[in-house]
Amino acid sequence: MTYTVAVSGASGYAGGEILRLLASHPDIEIRTVTAHSNAGQPLIEHQPHLRSLAHLTLQDTTPEILAGHDVVFLALPHGQSGQYTDALGDVPLVVDAGADHRLTSQESWDAFYGGHFHEPWAYGVPELIIDGSKQRENLRTAKRIAAPGCNASTVSLSLVPGVAAGVIDPYDIVSVLAVGPSGAGKSLKPHLLGSELLGTANPYAVGGTHRHIPEIQQALRGAGAADPRISFTPVLVPMARGILATSTAPIADGATDEQIRAAWQDAYGDETFVQLLPEGHFPRTADVLGANTALMGLAIDRAANRVTIVTAVDNLVKGTAGAAIQSMNLALGLPEGRALTVNGVAP
Amino acid sequence: MTYTVAVSGASGYAGGEILRLLASHPDIEIRTVTAHSNAGQPLIEHQPHLRSLAHLTLQDTTPEILAGHDVVFLALPHGQSGQYTDALGDVPLVVDAGADHRLTSQESWDAFYGGHFHEPWAYGVPELIIDGSKQRENLRTAKRIAAPGCNASTVSLSLVPGVAAGVIDPYDIVSVLAVGPSGAGKSLKPHLLGSELLGTANPYAVGGTHRHIPEIQQALRGAGAADPRISFTPVLVPMARGILATSTAPIADGATDEQIRAAWQDAYGDETFVQLLPEGHFPRTADVLGANTALMGLAIDRAANRVTIVTAVDNLVKGTAGAAIQSMNLALGLPEGRALTVNGVAP
Amino acid sequence: MTYTVAVSGASGYAGGEILRLLASHPDIEIRTVTAHSNAGQPLIEHQPHLRSLAHLTLQDTTPEILAGHDVVFLALPHGQSGQYTDALGDVPLVVDAGADHRLTSQESWDAFYGGHFHEPWAYGVPELIIDGSKQRENLRTAKRIAAPGCNASTVSLSLVPGVAAGVIDPYDIVSVLAVGPSGAGKSLKPHLLGSELLGTANPYAVGGTHRHIPEIQQALRGAGAADPRISFTPVLVPMARGILATSTAPIADGATDEQIRAAWQDAYGDETFVQLLPEGHFPRTADVLGANTALMGLAIDRAANRVTIVTAVDNLVKGTAGAAIQSMNLALGLPEGRALTVNGVAP
Amino acid sequence: MTYTVAVSGASGYAGGEILRLLASHPDIEIRTVTAHSNAGQPLIEHQPHLRSLAHLTLQDTTPEILAGHDVVFLALPHGQSGQYTDALGDVPLVVDAGADHRLTSQESWDAFYGGHFHEPWAYGVPELIIDGSKQRENLRTAKRIAAPGCNASTVSLSLVPGVAAGVIDPYDIVSVLAVGPSGAGKSLKPHLLGSELLGTANPYAVGGTHRHIPEIQQALRGAGAADPRISFTPVLVPMARGILATSTAPIADGATDEQIRAAWQDAYGDETFVQLLPEGHFPRTADVLGANTALMGLAIDRAANRVTIVTAVDNLVKGTAGAAIQSMNLALGLPEGRALTVNGVAP
Repeated sequence: MTYTVAVSGASGYAGGEILRLLASHPDIEIRTVTAHSNAGQPLIEHQPHLRSLAHLTLQDTTPEILAGHDVVFLALPHGQSGQYTDALGDVPLVVDAGADHRLTSQESWDAFYGGHFHEPWAYGVPELIIDGSKQRENLRTAKRIAAPGCNASTVSLSLVPGVAAGVIDPYDIVSVLAVGPSGAGKSLKPHLLGSELLGTANPYAVGGTHRHIPEIQQALRGAGAADPRISFTPVLVPMARGILATSTAPIADGATDEQIRAAWQDAYGDETFVQLLPEGHFPRTADVLGANTALMGLAIDRAANRVTIVTAVDNLVKGTAGAAIQSMNLALGLPEGRALTVNGVAP
Repeated sequence: MTYTVAVSGASGYAGGEILRLLASHPDIEIRTVTAHSNAGQPLIEHQPHLRSLAHLTLQDTTPEILAGHDVVFLALPHGQSGQYTDALGDVPLVVDAGADHRLTSQESWDAFYGGHFHEPWAYGVPELIIDGSKQRENLRTAKRIAAPGCNASTVSLSLVPGVAAGVIDPYDIVSVLAVGPSGAGKSLKPHLLGSELLGTANPYAVGGTHRHIPEIQQALRGAGAADPRISFTPVLVPMARGILATSTAPIADGATDEQIRAAWQDAYGDETFVQLLPEGHFPRTADVLGANTALMGLAIDRAANRVTIVTAVDNLVKGTAGAAIQSMNLALGLPEGRALTVNGVAP
Repeated sequence: MTYTVAVSGASGYAGGEILRLLASHPDIEIRTVTAHSNAGQPLIEHQPHLRSLAHLTLQDTTPEILAGHDVVFLALPHGQSGQYTDALGDVPLVVDAGADHRLTSQESWDAFYGGHFHEPWAYGVPELIIDGSKQRENLRTAKRIAAPGCNASTVSLSLVPGVAAGVIDPYDIVSVLAVGPSGAGKSLKPHLLGSELLGTANPYAVGGTHRHIPEIQQALRGAGAADPRISFTPVLVPMARGILATSTAPIADGATDEQIRAAWQDAYGDETFVQLLPEGHFPRTADVLGANTALMGLAIDRAANRVTIVTAVDNLVKGTAGAAIQSMNLALGLPEGRALTVNGVAP
Repeated sequence: MTYTVAVSGASGYAGGEILRLLASHPDIEIRTVTAHSNAGQPLIEHQPHLRSLAHLTLQDTTPEILAGHDVVFLALPHGQSGQYTDALGDVPLVVDAGADHRLTSQESWDAFYGGHFHEPWAYGVPELIIDGSKQRENLRTAKRIAAPGCNASTVSLSLVPGVAAGVIDPYDIVSVLAVGPSGAGKSLKPHLLGSELLGTANPYAVGGTHRHIPEIQQALRGAGAADPRISFTPVLVPMARGILATSTAPIADGATDEQIRAAWQDAYGDETFVQLLPEGHFPRTADVLGANTALMGLAIDRAANRVTIVTAVDNLVKGTAGAAIQSMNLALGLPEGRALTVNGVAP
């Protein structure tokens, strides 16, 4: 059967990427695309790369227009998705690419976001180990799915296997990420202008203020860490897409090199979209551009007493839209990787 | 008086930057430029941006040709500078931009470089606190100077004030650097091709293998750390120049926020070329492009129990050629900042 | 049925892109990949983004190893493909991504390439009008196909409709192209280093020396121009992939605006992979990144008496590997667009 | 003596670059910096690279605040400078970096800009030949100076020598420019976002609509062309700064190669900041980054019957702020190149 889909926030980057991937999905009919201020305009004016969808017109983002589809994607700023929840009660599957339904802790929500706290939905990272089993299983029966934060899922996937296996210590993690600006959306802010980003590296949210921190801590708690601590610094670098997350954690007392590598190998050895590279190999973001793949390399630095995991992800695919569609495929009972690619577009 | 200068390695990036800065130095006459395989060719063929030096021809790099100048700059790969040392015995001032004379520990040299160990020269970072005093004083009387490694000096300047003041713990440092490829020189290696670097972030030397690690440890020992530990990961990002180093260290027990900021403020408050930005501000590499300035921002993350220092440097200026010339100015008794700029070329 | 394929030059950029596209082709089995100096190594060492092909090992490029497949792709430097022609006599379909079989004029070959002249093969640009009909028809029965030069096909597609319709004058064409360095291949040349390309625009082959000029002239002759003249200047810009070709030609006497737009609209109105944008719209290379699409915008400048056509292409896809596979699909009787996408990866 | 200076528009890119250059000018005291919406804020918040000016606060842009200085720079959007003219009557020297005082033809102004037409001021390109003599002479006595449009001066300098010497035909010129986005200012427009510019080439103002066209035509008329025609297409490419202008013009009947090269060599042979490269050499924008230099390469393409001139300029320096200060130096009787550099910052 073919499922009808509506995508809100269709003029933005997350919405555009959901559409790019769905456009090649054989089981999906993109019926409705919506936006706020751009309603009434052709989609192609805002997403000129989506030539196969040039026939679509942006409609207003209202519960009435979104209702009546088999699947609804919400690609809206946090704080906005929540207002559609009740009105979309009859929609069989809703996937939120925003933050409103990711956190289970209201305390964390209040500290990092503020405003109304919404109930947590199934977290859209199939490969993540939560409380001993892969999240994939939860997603197979989910009706409401929260796609992950791009930085958060990248770091969580990097660290959870080692925490769950007890080979790294989750109480003094340091993550520094080189990120492209598309993760910040199509916002008209001075620091996101091309002239400010070309040829330069720009740190932001330094010192523990980034909103993805509680999402990572939640994942680490799901791996058994009582009170995980993470120093988290993102750095904007001159590439439109991509996250290269360098995460380090202290080696747990007594953990051998074999045990350490085995933790990740066991977690991801059977996965298609999350892969540990062979020893001595580390990924580049180009290797996953446009792909739903998280590639990671692992080094054991005995001199520093730390494990370093370097993970490359396309923030708009595995970090957002690809995660959303992979989760949708699971919830609809379709092959998990449908419409998603493993190979990146490089060079 | 005017000092005559010879620059070896003049067809490379470090040599070219030394020449760019010297070209506007009122007390310097660039008399000789040398290279190896490119000897006999006009300098301008290899440094087309140095229009004011279009009259110079690259000579062979031999002790005889380098001798007889007031100052000689060696911008050669490590392992090559050493062979000129004896032959340049009569040259009043020699500045080596390579690694041969940076390390005081033969054990470190053997572990990270190998080959013949050379005696350490005065380390060319005037603002660095070594054994309680600024290195500036040593440089004023130096005849032989080792310009620093670009990543090493960036991280050392970032951390030494806190270690010396006892407000951070030097035994579990983590540094992750976004770096431009010019630091790797004009080497014809596949991973340095433009197609491999544009639009992507590429980690390298992951896991404790980078040659600048012992140089940082040496600086930390100079600040009082008995056995400093650092996890160090550089990431190539798509900008020709620049280093953005994110360094974190555990907060020392009992250190207050005021004490922490004061450590850096006291160390650099009077410096021109190393500046701590006001609270809540962090630098971009564009802010120091072409300038001899290291800008740093500091955040205290009590949740992670770490201090984060983000430092921006132009790897070819403050990281190499600017450090070399600033040190030369000191050794020659000239104003320390001559021919060096504080303001970066942005956007 | 499934066709077996061998790809030579598999460690390079063109070979890699052929493999990336074939990896998602349902009718193709990639059986053999070959290289020269890299033979014996895993493909994944050279193409780390092709995760789904991690099981393949590069073999030597010999006629014996290439023979015995249904389709052979030659992604070799010009002058090398020719030596395999005889030995591959039994291979049902051979597609050459190099230049050896593109030109029909030995005089042009001698002037721009030199060395042995090879017979021309069917030119792999299905949408190109040659002598009054689309090249698609020739490709349906072709056994030997020459994929186009990336710049050449971009400019030819831009101009041929207007020349064939008689609305522009082919005797004073000017084309200036912004191009990414991947078109130059994975060659270890100083001017292709990342440090030389990041943050700068670099012209090359200025003044009529680029090897794609005779290929464009050949296409223009196929559109009816007796002796076409073109001023052609490529400029390397800091993006790994992409061609943005700005081509202008004098307006033919008496041609109306309607006639001019109609020439392109009539030529490409039914095409999937070559599209004329609506009046006032012009493409970006990001709009076609990773896609097999050529997007063009057209402006009529009566003050300058010129038509300007701006065309965006991914040099590795529509410019090379996509053209090769689109042509293969036609020759094998498969749907023309199989394994090729219309939508680009943006932002 | 020291001249006091006020710079309006000091929070923008042109204003920032004027300040960067003036900061190293020994005869200038930057006394006042002004802005509109940012008045009251520290300059350093908006120009974080201008560390030596961290003590300055942005004042409101009013005639009263600007008056009373020896030199006033207006770095304002077109249409705004004019309103200050009367109020600044007593200021000895006013330099406008905007467009209000560039054009001599009201008809051109009305066609390309609209709004109130202001009287033309001395055009700030010292090396430009106007009516047979270098504009330098006019600037020596100027009290009011219009700095040029960055694209316009680049193209005008490229073509005027050949037109004035009669070796190229000014009636069918084609110019295509690769330009960085800083030329568009710090405007919050969607197409100037980093995500829209990184990794892609974006054409704009295609088809004869760019506002610098009449400024080029004016320069060509000053070189003797009665009714010059130019097809002009700018393309945004991923570099913060720089213009690489490829301009071609038909070879005048009978012009020899020697005569053609001599036209440019004679015009610029004695110039410091405008240089013709040797035959076969062409400039990159990196070669002039941060410098006040226009570098050009010239090719004679007999097959296309066109001369191609490729010129590299830093749009913010030689294209705007450097031109403004070079002109100021002339008007104040100072050495023309004071505070300006010839050598670019590369790589």
